[in-house]
Amino acid sequence: MIISMRLHATADEIDQVCERIKEFGYKVHSIVGEERVVIGVVGVGDVTACLESIQAMPGVESAVRISAPYKFVSKEFKPNHTRIRLNGIEIGGDDFCVMAGPCSVENEKQIMETAEGVAAAGAKILRGGAYKPRTSPYDFQGLGVEGLKLLAKAREATGLAVVTEVMSDGEVGLVAEYADIMQVGARNMQNFALLKALGGCGRPVLLKRGMSSTIKELLMSAEYITAHGNANVILCERGIRTFETATRNTCDLAAVPLLNELTHLPVIVDPSHATGKRSLVPPLSRAAAAIGADGLIVEVHPRPERAMSDGAQSLTLEGFREMMEQLRPCLDLWRQFRAPMNVVAVRQSIK
Amino acid sequence: MIISMRLHATADEIDQVCERIKEFGYKVHSIVGEERVVIGVVGVGDVTACLESIQAMPGVESAVRISAPYKFVSKEFKPNHTRIRLNGIEIGGDDFCVMAGPCSVENEKQIMETAEGVAAAGAKILRGGAYKPRTSPYDFQGLGVEGLKLLAKAREATGLAVVTEVMSDGEVGLVAEYADIMQVGARNMQNFALLKALGGCGRPVLLKRGMSSTIKELLMSAEYITAHGNANVILCERGIRTFETATRNTCDLAAVPLLNELTHLPVIVDPSHATGKRSLVPPLSRAAAAIGADGLIVEVHPRPERAMSDGAQSLTLEGFREMMEQLRPCLDLWRQFRAPMNVVAVRQSIK
Amino acid sequence: MIISMRLHATADEIDQVCERIKEFGYKVHSIVGEERVVIGVVGVGDVTACLESIQAMPGVESAVRISAPYKFVSKEFKPNHTRIRLNGIEIGGDDFCVMAGPCSVENEKQIMETAEGVAAAGAKILRGGAYKPRTSPYDFQGLGVEGLKLLAKAREATGLAVVTEVMSDGEVGLVAEYADIMQVGARNMQNFALLKALGGCGRPVLLKRGMSSTIKELLMSAEYITAHGNANVILCERGIRTFETATRNTCDLAAVPLLNELTHLPVIVDPSHATGKRSLVPPLSRAAAAIGADGLIVEVHPRPERAMSDGAQSLTLEGFREMMEQLRPCLDLWRQFRAPMNVVAVRQSIK
Amino acid sequence: MIISMRLHATADEIDQVCERIKEFGYKVHSIVGEERVVIGVVGVGDVTACLESIQAMPGVESAVRISAPYKFVSKEFKPNHTRIRLNGIEIGGDDFCVMAGPCSVENEKQIMETAEGVAAAGAKILRGGAYKPRTSPYDFQGLGVEGLKLLAKAREATGLAVVTEVMSDGEVGLVAEYADIMQVGARNMQNFALLKALGGCGRPVLLKRGMSSTIKELLMSAEYITAHGNANVILCERGIRTFETATRNTCDLAAVPLLNELTHLPVIVDPSHATGKRSLVPPLSRAAAAIGADGLIVEVHPRPERAMSDGAQSLTLEGFREMMEQLRPCLDLWRQFRAPMNVVAVRQSIK
Repeated sequence: MIISMRLHATADEIDQVCERIKEFGYKVHSIVGEERVVIGVVGVGDVTACLESIQAMPGVESAVRISAPYKFVSKEFKPNHTRIRLNGIEIGGDDFCVMAGPCSVENEKQIMETAEGVAAAGAKILRGGAYKPRTSPYDFQGLGVEGLKLLAKAREATGLAVVTEVMSDGEVGLVAEYADIMQVGARNMQNFALLKALGGCGRPVLLKRGMSSTIKELLMSAEYITAHGNANVILCERGIRTFETATRNTCDLAAVPLLNELTHLPVIVDPSHATGKRSLVPPLSRAAAAIGADGLIVEVHPRPERAMSDGAQSLTLEGFREMMEQLRPCLDLWRQFRAPMNVVAVRQSIK
Repeated sequence: MIISMRLHATADEIDQVCERIKEFGYKVHSIVGEERVVIGVVGVGDVTACLESIQAMPGVESAVRISAPYKFVSKEFKPNHTRIRLNGIEIGGDDFCVMAGPCSVENEKQIMETAEGVAAAGAKILRGGAYKPRTSPYDFQGLGVEGLKLLAKAREATGLAVVTEVMSDGEVGLVAEYADIMQVGARNMQNFALLKALGGCGRPVLLKRGMSSTIKELLMSAEYITAHGNANVILCERGIRTFETATRNTCDLAAVPLLNELTHLPVIVDPSHATGKRSLVPPLSRAAAAIGADGLIVEVHPRPERAMSDGAQSLTLEGFREMMEQLRPCLDLWRQFRAPMNVVAVRQSIK
Repeated sequence: MIISMRLHATADEIDQVCERIKEFGYKVHSIVGEERVVIGVVGVGDVTACLESIQAMPGVESAVRISAPYKFVSKEFKPNHTRIRLNGIEIGGDDFCVMAGPCSVENEKQIMETAEGVAAAGAKILRGGAYKPRTSPYDFQGLGVEGLKLLAKAREATGLAVVTEVMSDGEVGLVAEYADIMQVGARNMQNFALLKALGGCGRPVLLKRGMSSTIKELLMSAEYITAHGNANVILCERGIRTFETATRNTCDLAAVPLLNELTHLPVIVDPSHATGKRSLVPPLSRAAAAIGADGLIVEVHPRPERAMSDGAQSLTLEGFREMMEQLRPCLDLWRQFRAPMNVVAVRQSIK
Repeated sequence: MIISMRLHATADEIDQVCERIKEFGYKVHSIVGEERVVIGVVGVGDVTACLESIQAMPGVESAVRISAPYKFVSKEFKPNHTRIRLNGIEIGGDDFCVMAGPCSVENEKQIMETAEGVAAAGAKILRGGAYKPRTSPYDFQGLGVEGLKLLAKAREATGLAVVTEVMSDGEVGLVAEYADIMQVGARNMQNFALLKALGGCGRPVLLKRGMSSTIKELLMSAEYITAHGNANVILCERGIRTFETATRNTCDLAAVPLLNELTHLPVIVDPSHATGKRSLVPPLSRAAAAIGADGLIVEVHPRPERAMSDGAQSLTLEGFREMMEQLRPCLDLWRQFRAPMNVVAVRQSIK
């Protein structure tokens, strides 16, 4: 921690701050500058509590933490990239992993047709929403358990693993019965009750970045899941909300290599929600591979113009096949660039 | 709905769009411009489903809805401002309503001292968190039920009503046993499972705007609660996340009169989270009254430098007393400006 | 300056950083923490150059300046609020100062009619654009010199001072012949050639905050003008660009009291550009007075539906009169709250 | 244009809007919906003036243009990708074009050493600032004419073309004497006086996206240059300002394929300013190639820790060489994906 005192802070104010710091068990190093006093805090203790307290004291200009607020998810804690194994595949391993499927599970025909199509094109995991977070209470909210059962059926038919969203801590047990990977949607990235419940769910978790969440907050949410017992977290960049409205969100693709410097967790990209436009999905997917993401999650629908949600950003089965073919040469590159990732020294970090 | 076709859309593409629109039960009005065809859609039907479908069709440039996506919360549905009565007070009524108290309930002494102090200074409602949404899993998470009991005790001692946050749909019943008003935090504004559960909780709900939520989305979340049975929703502007980091958030104060044009629901302002700085709370509170808010929710702590959270933005009891005195002349103005609110014609709306 | 070294920074890297700091003439204080080394830098020197250099060195996690990067505009440099006197009025003084007029000067009838109307209603300064920054090259670009002459004519007829925008350093001399106050538009806030030229223009400058500029950057741009010889700068909050599109911009009203803590320069608010909606201008104007702004700049047009630009956010003459009447009781309050501003200790600052 | 009337708009208000539209020479198509009237406007006329007028009229909810506001830069106007030829190279052609060099020209040794190094590694164009836009008036402002002369000298020695920034319309002539490409910095993207002057400069212009500018605004600024006589504009995505502070800006990489759908102009990416971190530049460069950009502009300095600006984001000469080698396999891919760009039908557009 570094505390900057105000320009005209009194000796008394400075003393009180030092006293308070010591109450938390820390040691104090004061630096008397030309203009003001800066206090370095050294030791082990409850950083947040100390910060909160100091920030509220008279004469304090600012108090900032230097150490990262997360631990288990950091590259310092575990230098090797995490590999998550399920159904004979690996996320974060030696292959680029593509998850694909419709926004919502709508009926048996739709999900079976999609599952077969994306499997044939090379996807390893089937995505599909049974519980749908919709802005309007009047919009289709998903098939619920019925949707989960259809996903399980599609898994049986195709061998694809299944990833699907869970929206409430009360439904974690139910969804875990059917899903191979539990998805936390962007709107729930800081639903802490849900994150805690997922700590004990026994399944890998796909954690989507909140639309206005920083990279640090994303890592803190992953830390919640990990600290509550579940180390298998996959991070997902899906675009953030900015002033630009020409695309649905703004894809922060540079977050991928930055996350690779900060954490050992796998990182995938969702080019469908990031752009909201079908035509931008294939180029963004190539870029995601080139920048070193561990995989993709892509929306695909056999008849996008009949989709109950997100049709405009869904690829057709044919479009997905083409995209997967375009990706192939990128993946040779990907293997080449990815190789040194696990051994590279940690060279950069969130300021 | 208005659909714009692309510049080079074919006659066939246009026909297919018109056909699809009719399948939803709507009538079609084509306008053939110099450059492109625009299609007006008239009638009653499932707007979202139709929009989603059309947006995904070939030849379509854009498809936008014209009518508001919310109904019960709109001023068209109910022109008179909603007055929420509880404990002998009114929110949205003839008095400016101040809610005050600590970020977290920490112990009996702290909450009782604060409750007595804010009541003496003129607050009508006590705020205090028993369940705390914290970015880090290692930070103080609140006292839980114990905190709820302390709030109830403070209510008994002071007569203040109690507002406190609920973080999960599974805890709605428990929190409703103790709270007079159920608070939905900014991070949970689109926790739809929670919103639905609050539809049946039998208590007014204080709904905070998400930090990256639009005004339209805030109204849609209020519509969720209303559509699930609970019309007593209080909206709260608490600052949005922008590029500016000099304050904790950016207070969108103009949202207050805009909401007053769009909805009959009461709107209050949280100057503490909006700024994150104690010194900015009193001037922003005066501005909130001047712009026509129905009230405030303010963080107050007897010893901010000992607070377990949000000390830097908490007023002392003395600071709160001063602020309430400064507010007094503003409130005479407030009554004057507020008077015509219920009769004014609806003149403006989200584009 | 505070430099945080990386977790695994070597002794050699730390030494090199310390050496480099000393080359700039500073003294070094190292703090060896549990996890990493933090280096405090004390002394007088070229902070930016040193920062830039250190940030680029191996082993450095972050390097941040503690002292404010501006000097002349800071409250430390000059504790008393700046009063700018012209034409018998004062900005930053004991009266709330209202500037009003059309977006663009369109013709003599329009500007004379507006000038007389706003003067009668209590405005002290006439605004009007002769050179217009327009997003499209095909839109009306202003009357140029002809517009400046019409503004001068309106000044003669009404006694109002004139504020108008200058868009290029090459036009500063010309505009200064006609204008009483030189306006820098939001898009030019960091047009440094223009800012330098305004340093020698001999007129007060109204500096509008850029739509994505931080408060710190606004102060740095004011510092440019001041450092080049012109201390009479008026700051203007006119809304920033955020994700919210229901209003044209998001008015950061809390920036007003924050600026009052950081700088002695007067601060006014532009409720017209901040909202883009006529109906929101009067309530936001009341809030601006209540929060302690030094004045307003408001768009007024005799026939907004005939305006060549910004009609939707322009008040009619009648609307402006009503607004000024509504403001009157706020101004009594304003005087009361403003009084202590010049004597209050500097209590808060950008972190 | 599409005009939506308010819910309770009177017949009189609707008539007046229709009358006003006709005054502009347009035809009117009214659509009477269940809830409100929508008016379609067809014909040729001054869209902006009509929009501005209608938006200000009573009873109008919103008025939006359907046609794109730009013309010369649109893919409709010129379907083939623009190829800009200079010094025997092509931007927008069959090769990926890399521009590299220091942030600022500092002295002869630095610029000559850099020029030789980047030329040897495969760059075709030398970047370097002689006039520097700096947030602080106290920071190094560039060598001015002296810097331009050094750039010319480096061109002579290496055969590299030179791109450098021009900051004021008054300096366009001078800079054009030395530069092969005139750069408009992000802060000046809407400096319309500068854009107009560049219309007649006789050199290609590299137009950087403003840090809070939309894609549409970027295209409108390019339209300014084109409408004033200069069709050779290169667009540059360099990151936008968002709430995320872990990187200097947020690179909107999806803007590249979107721009390729909307305009025929070449688009390059600046990974240095987009991220602010040296280690993120190579992966982002690969992604830029994979997504279909026409090239890069990269900061390189022989001794970043001695750089007078932007050292933290500058590659060393050795780092640049490595990056160029990593890029090589990407460029084979690039040629493959780029091939169909000029013949592909225009399929998508800003909504």
